[in-house]
Amino acid sequence: MTAVPAHRAAWRDRWQTIIFGHDTPAGRRFDVLLIIVVLCSIVVVVLESLPDLPPGQRRGLMAAEWIITILFTVEYGMRLATARTPARYATSFFGIVDLLAILPTYLSLFFPGAQALGVVRGIRVLRVFRIFKLGEYIVESETLGRALYASRRKILVFLSAVVALVVVVGAAMYLIEGAESGFTSIPISMYWAVVTLTTVGYGDIAPQTPAGRMLASLVMILGYGIIAVPTGIVSAEIARAGRAAACRNCGVQQHDADARYCKRCGEPLSASAPPGSP
Amino acid sequence: MTAVPAHRAAWRDRWQTIIFGHDTPAGRRFDVLLIIVVLCSIVVVVLESLPDLPPGQRRGLMAAEWIITILFTVEYGMRLATARTPARYATSFFGIVDLLAILPTYLSLFFPGAQALGVVRGIRVLRVFRIFKLGEYIVESETLGRALYASRRKILVFLSAVVALVVVVGAAMYLIEGAESGFTSIPISMYWAVVTLTTVGYGDIAPQTPAGRMLASLVMILGYGIIAVPTGIVSAEIARAGRAAACRNCGVQQHDADARYCKRCGEPLSASAPPGSP
Amino acid sequence: MTAVPAHRAAWRDRWQTIIFGHDTPAGRRFDVLLIIVVLCSIVVVVLESLPDLPPGQRRGLMAAEWIITILFTVEYGMRLATARTPARYATSFFGIVDLLAILPTYLSLFFPGAQALGVVRGIRVLRVFRIFKLGEYIVESETLGRALYASRRKILVFLSAVVALVVVVGAAMYLIEGAESGFTSIPISMYWAVVTLTTVGYGDIAPQTPAGRMLASLVMILGYGIIAVPTGIVSAEIARAGRAAACRNCGVQQHDADARYCKRCGEPLSASAPPGSP
Amino acid sequence: MTAVPAHRAAWRDRWQTIIFGHDTPAGRRFDVLLIIVVLCSIVVVVLESLPDLPPGQRRGLMAAEWIITILFTVEYGMRLATARTPARYATSFFGIVDLLAILPTYLSLFFPGAQALGVVRGIRVLRVFRIFKLGEYIVESETLGRALYASRRKILVFLSAVVALVVVVGAAMYLIEGAESGFTSIPISMYWAVVTLTTVGYGDIAPQTPAGRMLASLVMILGYGIIAVPTGIVSAEIARAGRAAACRNCGVQQHDADARYCKRCGEPLSASAPPGSP
Repeated sequence: MTAVPAHRAAWRDRWQTIIFGHDTPAGRRFDVLLIIVVLCSIVVVVLESLPDLPPGQRRGLMAAEWIITILFTVEYGMRLATARTPARYATSFFGIVDLLAILPTYLSLFFPGAQALGVVRGIRVLRVFRIFKLGEYIVESETLGRALYASRRKILVFLSAVVALVVVVGAAMYLIEGAESGFTSIPISMYWAVVTLTTVGYGDIAPQTPAGRMLASLVMILGYGIIAVPTGIVSAEIARAGRAAACRNCGVQQHDADARYCKRCGEPLSASAPPGSP
Repeated sequence: MTAVPAHRAAWRDRWQTIIFGHDTPAGRRFDVLLIIVVLCSIVVVVLESLPDLPPGQRRGLMAAEWIITILFTVEYGMRLATARTPARYATSFFGIVDLLAILPTYLSLFFPGAQALGVVRGIRVLRVFRIFKLGEYIVESETLGRALYASRRKILVFLSAVVALVVVVGAAMYLIEGAESGFTSIPISMYWAVVTLTTVGYGDIAPQTPAGRMLASLVMILGYGIIAVPTGIVSAEIARAGRAAACRNCGVQQHDADARYCKRCGEPLSASAPPGSP
Repeated sequence: MTAVPAHRAAWRDRWQTIIFGHDTPAGRRFDVLLIIVVLCSIVVVVLESLPDLPPGQRRGLMAAEWIITILFTVEYGMRLATARTPARYATSFFGIVDLLAILPTYLSLFFPGAQALGVVRGIRVLRVFRIFKLGEYIVESETLGRALYASRRKILVFLSAVVALVVVVGAAMYLIEGAESGFTSIPISMYWAVVTLTTVGYGDIAPQTPAGRMLASLVMILGYGIIAVPTGIVSAEIARAGRAAACRNCGVQQHDADARYCKRCGEPLSASAPPGSP
Repeated sequence: MTAVPAHRAAWRDRWQTIIFGHDTPAGRRFDVLLIIVVLCSIVVVVLESLPDLPPGQRRGLMAAEWIITILFTVEYGMRLATARTPARYATSFFGIVDLLAILPTYLSLFFPGAQALGVVRGIRVLRVFRIFKLGEYIVESETLGRALYASRRKILVFLSAVVALVVVVGAAMYLIEGAESGFTSIPISMYWAVVTLTTVGYGDIAPQTPAGRMLASLVMILGYGIIAVPTGIVSAEIARAGRAAACRNCGVQQHDADARYCKRCGEPLSASAPPGSP
């Protein structure tokens, strides 16, 4: 009876390498195939929402939807079967995403329209993102991420100020304009304040009274100035992050991107070290 | 009769510590409670403005409004009673805010809708903002504030230019478009100019004639360039403020990020001091 | 007969000092009075355009308009009479502005509505702008102006690209959308392209067809990226202009705003020299 | 028979110098004439699209269109005839553009309206752009181009994030709002998401439900923060590109503005060399 587990283990190992690995040719082919199917499934979900599809095309899309869902279900079962510890996989981030990727279609049997939730499958692309030679892009996105992370406190302070301003301006416009101009409640006035401060300006709600227009003008010019703040924060951080490459000897960070020697102590900077590495 | 004042003084002292202080456990609990009640009162004010509330919920919100107002009134009385110099408290910034926090509800007995003014209670949050370990956020907001303060003259020059532009463009559009397109007066045309220059663009007033659209296009492209100016100002200031590390000898702040010696007096700069520390 | 010219010369000299000068108390009082009257006249012009004024107020504003115009006419005559060379004054920039300031009211006798042109009087404020202690603001506006001037070529290149994009996108949308969606001609499509690229987005003209919306989405994302370019240009120039203070010995310009010694040659920098002076 | 080819060669050489060259007076005159005709042809195409032209003017414009097209056709024939290797010219970038410049008018005989494609002629301006003393502008546009090229990866990472956000937000709004508010399909909801994230905000589609407006507010504030990212990227790159002064020994470009020696190899940098010179 030991031969059967050995046989099963070999079967599991081979498929585990294909499904979870990125290093073998078969594993790569599987990854590329998966990325294509995921992108196709998103296109199918988007197209299916079109209201005036001819019945033939709609049936075709539904068939594609179900084929993709069954493929994903099989793949999810295979992952569960071949994972070293199925329970840990099922509760991991990608395990949950893989489950969420197949649920919407089954749910749509009971709740029509639920398949639109299928766009969540897009997260699956992240899993195999790293198989391509995208290293440089990952460095860049890390640079962007680090710049945003470094300015998280400034951004929070800024967002609190914006929220406070939205509440105060919303209440003021509700009092000034009233229901005739569409400012029927403070939440709707706050929605208007967000639409205005961010310079989106739909125009579905707009002040009509002279006093309201005067206040709105002030809010707009303020919003014009406020738009400068996050831009300034992120600009300064990106400029700083772009220069970061720490010296291993003295720890100085503000070297230019192409510097070869530490400008303080002369220690050679390792060119291959990722910027910002400790 | 001296015992009674002594008893009263002890009573006052204990409550003063609780109400005004932030250091004792009781004082902290009071602060946290106050912040929660303030946030609740704002939510109540916002919800109360909804026009289509069921009568039951509206009565519930009005009850909550009155309970909070009575709590705030009691608290205001306690502050007056326990403050060292009640007159100075009553005329201080926070004394006036505390009074303004309870007035709107009483006013709403005579002027329906006045309770919307209650959003002014939000300012009360500032009072207890510092009890949390928010020191780093305060440093950040001070950095932002300093950046804005340092560029106040540039911003004023910029705003004057914008106001002048708004007046001239508003008058020109009033002459070109006239009342048929909604440009019924110069103030309304100026409102349109603000809406356009800030790229909000509601669309409730929009040019209809070829000449008006040509001028509007110019104004938009100008506004596109103008948006760059405050952003540039604030970016430059934030980048500069971020590099600030004061010299302990002479107090100069504008050193480069990698400077080791004060550029004015030669004092070594301590590298470990957090930027912006006094 | 020589006494009369001498008498006239003394009279002219005294009034010339008052009207053209800024150094005597009388001259200063005249300047302050002039600035107030100019600002009043702009307010009058703006208010006069309101369509639903009661006849009484309209008559009052018209009276104010005529009184201000007569005052300006007298002042213009005085300036002509007391100027050293009246012809040169009449053809100077401010001479023409002073004439333009009084013409609209007289024109409104023949062309109703012409008085709206009176906002041109705002330029007169510039004349006496310098009498106040506004030196620091002038330095700031010169810094801003220098930053814009230094980046004039980048801005021109950028504007040419925007204009080319507007023409191409306008023609494409005209072909794709056609008259049903409001894209009735290429100029109107170009107007739409400007409204969209600058993120103003009135919504009076908007694409309706799937192809048009797809192209519009591309244009918007492009415009989103394009908005970064002028901001980047101006940011970089303001950051640079803020640091400019040339060394008199070696000519290096990129000193920090508070540097006291040239960082290249050690020459003391004159703190009082306006930044950017040769 | 050898005399005839020699004669033809001389004729071809002379015309080749005029048509393709920029150095002789005749060649320059040809270039200037060509640029004027190209600009005229664009104006004609734009004007022709106006729907309410009097028949006389429309006929005039059509005549101008045909005259210009025949001129361009003759010029295209001359270029083919005088080019050293006609096949290589015909398949070169400018050869194809020259052909595309004449096709729309001929196509309009069969497909009315096709002449609007004639705006593609604008690309022809690029050909003779360099004949003017525009060297400095070309340097500036190269600086801008280099700044954009250097940040291409950051921009791509950013664009991918925006596209992912647009898909997710579009699907969510489609589920929340539904067809009553105009969110009739996911593609239309994605179009709305682009219009909102880029702060264009037409208002032709806008959320009506409280949940939809809450999500929209979040998206707007997010978009407000997101607008900071490309601006920060381009600002940092332009600031860096502006400092570029290449070392003549090793070619390194990213020196600080006040560096005197190359930071990589120690070669003195020539201070007088224009930035960006090879």
